[in-house]
Amino acid sequence: MNIMVPNRTSANLALNQLVDERVAAGELLVHLAFGEARLPVLPELAQRLAAGASRAAYGPVAGDHGVRAAVAGYFGRRGIPTVADQVVVAPGSKPLLMALQFAVPGDVLLPQPAWNTYAPQAELAHKKVYRVPIPAECGGVPEPGALQETIRKARVTGGNPRLLVLTLPDNPTGTLASPELVRAVCAVAEAEDLLVVSDEIYRDVVHDPVATPVLSPAEVIPDRVVITSGLSKSLGLGGWRIGVARFPTGAGGERLRDSVVSIASEMWSTLAGPMQHVAEHAFAEPPEVTERLAACARLHGAVARAVHGTAVAAGASCRPPVGGFYVYPDFEPRRAQLAGRGITDSASLAEALLRDFGIVVLAGHLLGDDPQALRFKAATSLLYGDRQQQLEALHSDDPAQLPHVASQLDRIAAGFEALAS
Amino acid sequence: MNIMVPNRTSANLALNQLVDERVAAGELLVHLAFGEARLPVLPELAQRLAAGASRAAYGPVAGDHGVRAAVAGYFGRRGIPTVADQVVVAPGSKPLLMALQFAVPGDVLLPQPAWNTYAPQAELAHKKVYRVPIPAECGGVPEPGALQETIRKARVTGGNPRLLVLTLPDNPTGTLASPELVRAVCAVAEAEDLLVVSDEIYRDVVHDPVATPVLSPAEVIPDRVVITSGLSKSLGLGGWRIGVARFPTGAGGERLRDSVVSIASEMWSTLAGPMQHVAEHAFAEPPEVTERLAACARLHGAVARAVHGTAVAAGASCRPPVGGFYVYPDFEPRRAQLAGRGITDSASLAEALLRDFGIVVLAGHLLGDDPQALRFKAATSLLYGDRQQQLEALHSDDPAQLPHVASQLDRIAAGFEALAS
Repeated sequence: MNIMVPNRTSANLALNQLVDERVAAGELLVHLAFGEARLPVLPELAQRLAAGASRAAYGPVAGDHGVRAAVAGYFGRRGIPTVADQVVVAPGSKPLLMALQFAVPGDVLLPQPAWNTYAPQAELAHKKVYRVPIPAECGGVPEPGALQETIRKARVTGGNPRLLVLTLPDNPTGTLASPELVRAVCAVAEAEDLLVVSDEIYRDVVHDPVATPVLSPAEVIPDRVVITSGLSKSLGLGGWRIGVARFPTGAGGERLRDSVVSIASEMWSTLAGPMQHVAEHAFAEPPEVTERLAACARLHGAVARAVHGTAVAAGASCRPPVGGFYVYPDFEPRRAQLAGRGITDSASLAEALLRDFGIVVLAGHLLGDDPQALRFKAATSLLYGDRQQQLEALHSDDPAQLPHVASQLDRIAAGFEALAS
Repeated sequence: MNIMVPNRTSANLALNQLVDERVAAGELLVHLAFGEARLPVLPELAQRLAAGASRAAYGPVAGDHGVRAAVAGYFGRRGIPTVADQVVVAPGSKPLLMALQFAVPGDVLLPQPAWNTYAPQAELAHKKVYRVPIPAECGGVPEPGALQETIRKARVTGGNPRLLVLTLPDNPTGTLASPELVRAVCAVAEAEDLLVVSDEIYRDVVHDPVATPVLSPAEVIPDRVVITSGLSKSLGLGGWRIGVARFPTGAGGERLRDSVVSIASEMWSTLAGPMQHVAEHAFAEPPEVTERLAACARLHGAVARAVHGTAVAAGASCRPPVGGFYVYPDFEPRRAQLAGRGITDSASLAEALLRDFGIVVLAGHLLGDDPQALRFKAATSLLYGDRQQQLEALHSDDPAQLPHVASQLDRIAAGFEALAS
């Protein structure tokens, strides 16, 4: 075959492969580069999957009415009134995000840094990507002034930014934009006629929901916000591939939903019937689901805060995590010390952590951040041990003190410390 | 929201909506426009789904080794030696076909008519579509001389056809390209440096496998053929969304697989773990699966042949179906009679069938065929009744004579006859 297939290599994939090789060679690594909530499946959901086996017909592309009504109820309980017709379910939120990029014309605005899938999806959809730095206090949203300035400059140079992707709470920083900041960015979106995709897949992983209220952009500018979410992060069901989208109110929202459904019908047909059966139950939030959500959020919070502590102790600056299972340290305050070890950018920083300390992180430039910055993403959700240890951690008042967790935290602390001293 | 979202409406979707409205209004329709193999789930596969519930981790994008090895064995038993590394599984073959369109550069060559999803996928991938008429004896492959001529003309006008999609057995014609024809088309693909996607999702729905041997293009030009398949059609699991792709041998095949895996990692992550658990079992083909495959193929064959008979009796010309559950009648011999009813093209033909006889078909132009031709696709797989009747049909020696099947066949026969007389 002489056909030249362009060589695409996802940063995450390449890293995982390297990790696999090192692990296969017998090395014990601390894996902080993969955002999987590795926790046992809730027994009621496993039963529900089995009970859904007979759902083997294609069914509606958007999902059956039952599951869409359950998802609508889920949003309603969060202060975002929703009807079933505003909801589309899919095999993960990734395909929905992809379809949205196809459906909305124009170019894309992303926070810098941002989750590493938004930009490749924009490329597949033949869109230009404009990155806007995040404020000092949190990620997942661009700094409003910088956003306006980026749009202005983009238009001058022939760009047409129309789609703004936000992440609330944020991957990679583990922070949550404040209501004031959300309102400010929404005002820009309204003034500049942007469609906002609000990726809220970590919404139920806010560590302390009372202390940290979430304001969705959909509450501020309901006619121009699509919310995406799913069960991968909140219930540890990444491998079940259950995602949802909530479309805007009004005629524009309906048109956008129809367009996404049409694209879905060509790209993936629908979410598997048994998974719709699961989703209908989970999004209805019976007591066992509510309890599990709370337990997961507490666990993720405790361990993310502990890793945050190790980074700060080693001299990094780092926004305190309030949601999800990520921290995003910046070792700029230790640039001189790191330079002595030959570390001058995010790539060499991540390489050194893997090479010298067996700690795997995702370098900031792979998330669209400045390659010269000394930043990386650390995912803290693979530190919970085996199945039995995960259950123990879920029910522990102080999971960071459990021996199997603490030993890994110690290793991380020692690595960060040794690196930056 | 002022953002103009382009209005996309899938032909299938629009039709299904119309059908839903008529059914909701109390009408009893004969639905021949939806290619779903509506049959009960094999109990062993339902058990397997339940047993796979704990597989909630993301796992490798291409699928776990176990399922890929099982799929490799499946192809090996069909005379196409395959190793696990040549296999990628996904939530249906649709996303795999989509990713292939993204991965392979250049434009697309399609048989005319062809399944209605290939062309919209090409559009999403910013590819031009060149359609090549099928031979008189079968569909799913273009006529070789016309193929060469189309490529030549396309290049003269600035096109760059590099991807040829074949369907074996074919949707919409229900026919299978002969080994001679496959070899002839493969010779063109080799001479013109085309990558061939051979959609073989109906391979196990060949009605009489002894009388109708399948030659896959992958046996002829192994280094430039990707085979796609899945369990939706053969085992009636459309709603479970299980698809597979087998990549070419050699370095080019590896590069293409890596590219598709990379695209998959951005578009859908992986096939759900419990579904991989199902697929591993099904593709290993234990006795109950082999028996079910044979029973389904027999049933589909009997009913498709019966519908073919009604079309021919009404004066249509129609290639005899040998695989899948489709027939593709051409009412050209009755053009004069149809004109008397105001029917002059495929759209008005399908409209009249629905309006006057409650028979729902998919007009040929929606499959890329000449809009002036009097052709349509009739899917025959929704005629098997309710769950109990489906089981009865599966085990019947003459399912077309079962009262609940025969009554619908009579209605189709009467409709075709009345229309064309």
